[in-house]
Amino acid sequence: MALTKDIRSRMSQPDPRPLDLSSIRITANCLRILAMDAVQQANSGHPGLPMGMADVASVLWARCLNFDPDHPDWQDRDRFVLSAGHGSMLLYALLHLSGYDLPLNEIKSFRQWGSRTPGHPEHFQTLGVETTTGPLGQGISNAVGMALAARWLSERFNRPSFPIVSHRTFVIASDGDMMEGVAHEACSLAGHLGLSGLTVLYDDNHVSIDGPTDLSFSEDVLARFQGYGWQVAKVDGHNLEEVATALDVAIEDAARPSIIACTTVIGYGSPNRSGTAKAHGEPLGIEEVRLAKAALGWREESTFEIPAEARAPLHQAANAGRARHVAWKAMFEGYAEAYPELAADFQRASLGELPTGWDRELPVFDGREDPIATRSASGSVLKELVPAVPDLLGGSADLTGSNQTLPSDEVAVNAHDFSGRYLYYGVREHGMGAIMNGLAIHGGVIPYGGTFLVFSDYMRPAIRLAAMMKLGVVYVFTHDSIGLGEDGPTHQPVEQLLSLRAIPGLVVIRPADAAETVEGWRVAIKRRNGPTALLLTRQALPVLERTPTGSLAAASGVEQGAYVLADTPRVDAILIGSGSEVHIALQAKQLLHEQGVEVRVVSIPSWELFDSMPQEYRETVLPSNVVPRVAIEAGVSIGWEKYVGSSGVVIGLDHFGASAPYQRLYDEFGLTAKEMAAVTRRLIDLQID
Amino acid sequence: MALTKDIRSRMSQPDPRPLDLSSIRITANCLRILAMDAVQQANSGHPGLPMGMADVASVLWARCLNFDPDHPDWQDRDRFVLSAGHGSMLLYALLHLSGYDLPLNEIKSFRQWGSRTPGHPEHFQTLGVETTTGPLGQGISNAVGMALAARWLSERFNRPSFPIVSHRTFVIASDGDMMEGVAHEACSLAGHLGLSGLTVLYDDNHVSIDGPTDLSFSEDVLARFQGYGWQVAKVDGHNLEEVATALDVAIEDAARPSIIACTTVIGYGSPNRSGTAKAHGEPLGIEEVRLAKAALGWREESTFEIPAEARAPLHQAANAGRARHVAWKAMFEGYAEAYPELAADFQRASLGELPTGWDRELPVFDGREDPIATRSASGSVLKELVPAVPDLLGGSADLTGSNQTLPSDEVAVNAHDFSGRYLYYGVREHGMGAIMNGLAIHGGVIPYGGTFLVFSDYMRPAIRLAAMMKLGVVYVFTHDSIGLGEDGPTHQPVEQLLSLRAIPGLVVIRPADAAETVEGWRVAIKRRNGPTALLLTRQALPVLERTPTGSLAAASGVEQGAYVLADTPRVDAILIGSGSEVHIALQAKQLLHEQGVEVRVVSIPSWELFDSMPQEYRETVLPSNVVPRVAIEAGVSIGWEKYVGSSGVVIGLDHFGASAPYQRLYDEFGLTAKEMAAVTRRLIDLQID
Repeated sequence: MALTKDIRSRMSQPDPRPLDLSSIRITANCLRILAMDAVQQANSGHPGLPMGMADVASVLWARCLNFDPDHPDWQDRDRFVLSAGHGSMLLYALLHLSGYDLPLNEIKSFRQWGSRTPGHPEHFQTLGVETTTGPLGQGISNAVGMALAARWLSERFNRPSFPIVSHRTFVIASDGDMMEGVAHEACSLAGHLGLSGLTVLYDDNHVSIDGPTDLSFSEDVLARFQGYGWQVAKVDGHNLEEVATALDVAIEDAARPSIIACTTVIGYGSPNRSGTAKAHGEPLGIEEVRLAKAALGWREESTFEIPAEARAPLHQAANAGRARHVAWKAMFEGYAEAYPELAADFQRASLGELPTGWDRELPVFDGREDPIATRSASGSVLKELVPAVPDLLGGSADLTGSNQTLPSDEVAVNAHDFSGRYLYYGVREHGMGAIMNGLAIHGGVIPYGGTFLVFSDYMRPAIRLAAMMKLGVVYVFTHDSIGLGEDGPTHQPVEQLLSLRAIPGLVVIRPADAAETVEGWRVAIKRRNGPTALLLTRQALPVLERTPTGSLAAASGVEQGAYVLADTPRVDAILIGSGSEVHIALQAKQLLHEQGVEVRVVSIPSWELFDSMPQEYRETVLPSNVVPRVAIEAGVSIGWEKYVGSSGVVIGLDHFGASAPYQRLYDEFGLTAKEMAAVTRRLIDLQID
Repeated sequence: MALTKDIRSRMSQPDPRPLDLSSIRITANCLRILAMDAVQQANSGHPGLPMGMADVASVLWARCLNFDPDHPDWQDRDRFVLSAGHGSMLLYALLHLSGYDLPLNEIKSFRQWGSRTPGHPEHFQTLGVETTTGPLGQGISNAVGMALAARWLSERFNRPSFPIVSHRTFVIASDGDMMEGVAHEACSLAGHLGLSGLTVLYDDNHVSIDGPTDLSFSEDVLARFQGYGWQVAKVDGHNLEEVATALDVAIEDAARPSIIACTTVIGYGSPNRSGTAKAHGEPLGIEEVRLAKAALGWREESTFEIPAEARAPLHQAANAGRARHVAWKAMFEGYAEAYPELAADFQRASLGELPTGWDRELPVFDGREDPIATRSASGSVLKELVPAVPDLLGGSADLTGSNQTLPSDEVAVNAHDFSGRYLYYGVREHGMGAIMNGLAIHGGVIPYGGTFLVFSDYMRPAIRLAAMMKLGVVYVFTHDSIGLGEDGPTHQPVEQLLSLRAIPGLVVIRPADAAETVEGWRVAIKRRNGPTALLLTRQALPVLERTPTGSLAAASGVEQGAYVLADTPRVDAILIGSGSEVHIALQAKQLLHEQGVEVRVVSIPSWELFDSMPQEYRETVLPSNVVPRVAIEAGVSIGWEKYVGSSGVVIGLDHFGASAPYQRLYDEFGLTAKEMAAVTRRLIDLQID
């Protein structure tokens, strides 16, 4: 299925709309006015970028961008990403002038509690905002993910005469975006994949917060992007025709993503602040706003004044978009007749719903298997899951075999064929994280991606944004403890378990065996409103013998976050563990039993899921009348106090690991059943005293 | 003081040693043999890179590298960084053959508990290992810091005829290093600064873990580096003369850092595995090792066999290095006569000692000042500290004004003048973190660098390595809570406080006012064996009236991590807070007092420092008999249970923030004195019941 050429044909792209220079100039100046006024009213914000890029943005929106303000969720709309999120007023002003549901009083409430115009654009909070931006480098990298999603979905769904997925992704990026490593990573991959649906407008204004960019940044950005395989161009960002022509050329290129460096003056229009770092991130001041208004042909004393001419080019663009949306719907009806199953699948995937019976074929582990690493169990799950859930697009940051993220029947996407189900991200964890966010935001795709748990640190800013945006991304973090052994402390996570749990809205699941791994995946896939991290072992673990065949509780308890795995009529103490350490707790239980002490073992694969359960359930698992409690986890001990109480003990690892075979490390660091049993006995003795 | 040209003169660089091709080939093959055998014996490890880069490494060490194996800490030695740390056996074999204190039995204990040959090279664990590597992109970025340190120190200490700092930094980097964003950031800055003392040998072997690099990586790396302003070259990495010539040209360039792409065959010498991903990260297998030995002219059945000829070129290099070290010492004696103060300062700085009286002029805040943000108090501290401690080299990731990291009297380093005391890192947090590690490892420099606390996430892998390597780096993380206000949730740290505290060996200090900020800096500067993060407010905070002028305890308690700030004869409850929230606790104390409830207020700027105090001290601050305890911090609540106990309450922020003026956010999120007082009363009532 190589429909690529068909999809990229001009047919599927709107003809650029005519360029009415004088109207667009008024639009651009109106964007400047709104940005200045809103920032001044809030007495906080960034006027510099909106004023500098107003011309470029006006040309893009008036002439090229395909959007329907009445339906910001139309699947085949072009995506616009303001990667330089601090220039949020540019986006809000564009949305307002274009007729999105963002009334002027919202603009006037810029940066205030409860407004739809927060300091940085927030996905979900404002219709028409495609992604949360502000942390530099993230938006442009999300855009790579969006362009990839569009290309991948076009391969999956488009059919001759039915290019139902044929939109483009446009980005406005700043110097900061060019400096951040995550953007390097994502843009390098975009070049590798030849993502021609992506166009970046780079605000080359030579000014950052610290002053002129040449304080720290003198590289030849376009040479770098050429090195990545991008089409590059350089224009005067205040010359509307140059911008328009460069956009046409960029859109025309069917083989490469494109970047247009737009030389602009930051704060353009402000007589005294333009071209200076002062224009970047603070209000111009009442007097300077007045002077700028005069310079731009506005009434000096007016505020938030919008001449009808300013709206005209964007209204025309909106109307063209509405018409294209109508035409698209008609096309989609024909598509639904010709390809009813595909059309239904497209609608389902777009809504983020799962196919019926998606988890029917998941493997079952009942305890009769040989020991198996949870990363391998995860690999077995994916073997069934990937065929059953066609929205899944997997990947790994160059650890495919280690992460076991590529089912053997599947192939990878490449620049010439996007029909694969997998992506080799390269050694680019952060880029992977941000691209997965873009895939998820786009819709129709469920991204999962793997790396070693310790390298989750590299992609943390992207994980945070996934959590903030409530994206159903799945992280496959393997080699989740000192259990990885010889690679040593740089590769052994210790604090990552806790630091991931600390991210609000991220669910972390650390399964104790193969059966819990299956359940962990089930939770992750069902969870379409937030990210999930699966923490998996490198080392083999016994598969627990569960009911009805064994004495241990079913792994379905994973959904509750924690459950009583092994019980006893008389509970002298409770042993708590996660992941591989649950087996140590079970061994300790046996040791204690031999010494006449009876304990319950609780498996707690997920703090977040458990903490969200009703108090009654939590009390059944950890009854408050059982005081002696010992928890074990091969990670820092902070936070476990919550479960063991003030008088409990945590057997953790509050220092870095070491390089040696892993069993030796567990012994040397005291993470053993013997130690756990001894600690438990001491606690019980203390209580009896 | 522009001695730059003088320093870069050939005079200060050793003449390249002669190239005895046949000997060097034996050395290279011996490196291959040792790598194969050690990996095979450990049954784990990475033979591919050592075998592929053995020729390049042999030429570098035998011909160019200036080292004295008897004095691995000689200040003017060349630095060698194996950025591709997984190839650790290459480094260990080089150290062993060159005569460093790394006997063959250590090589035979590769990757075993307690050996000096861990899976990845660990700083401090093995003499001659300059930095801990393994997490890709870090080593090459550390090397940028080392080269910068050398250049900066040469400016500070060298005098005509006394080029006492004139060494170079050499790096072996892999494809993975080229893909990681942190390396992009650091290398872009290296180009900007024209760090000609830096040479990167890039192992361009076209194979990564997932397979051929063209799965994910097709960019023109050298074009990219040219874009950064580097000198670039491409050679056959198995052609010794080509490598030697390229090195000569690189060393000759006095204006630019250089990168030499060395086309190599991964696992070179292994008849069946070479050139494949299989050679990368697993033992070759006994049979293949045998075949490789035969192919390389070794006895098939031998293990760890080292012919004397293999050592010869490296011994010659070592002897040349010893001679240069002797000459250097003689030069230094002359220098010490001519410039006694400079020489003494050089020795002091090299030992990591602080100048006498370095903290004498630190500002004193006694409570009579106007409210001041702790970031501004930090700025006041730096104004005194930077002149008093000449080793300090500050910087910020493009937030200089916001972080208040640049004292007004100081200037920044640039490509033409390295005498400044500051570095504009650009929007490159991760690069900054890794470069600061390199500066600190080099010695003679105390780096500090600023960004917003939320963006500490971008540099987390570098912070982790600073902690692991016990480097005295200081992080200035401002805008430390929702107190930053309008910029909204993307800029408001919530989980970062905890996730930094989770890193073993990092000390986190969150001062409550200006006086605590002074003490925080004092701790950070004194702490030369580990990194310290200062978490500072954007918003102004009252300066507390402390003894003897006021009723509150002295800020010197910061050194103990936590202290009783405000006490009362009868303690009904304890209120605990950090940073800006200490003021809420103090207000709550007043409210409660008006209601007849008497509470103690504990300021806890640093968990780590407090937890390291003796139990007796901790008991005096948080006596176990006072059960009602309430803690407040504008961050996630996890971990505070440790201080408030099972029945205590934590007023935290377990969700992301919002965009609004900050007072509004504190109110909306319930972080108020009224709430704290109410919670405290409820707790006391519960206890009375």
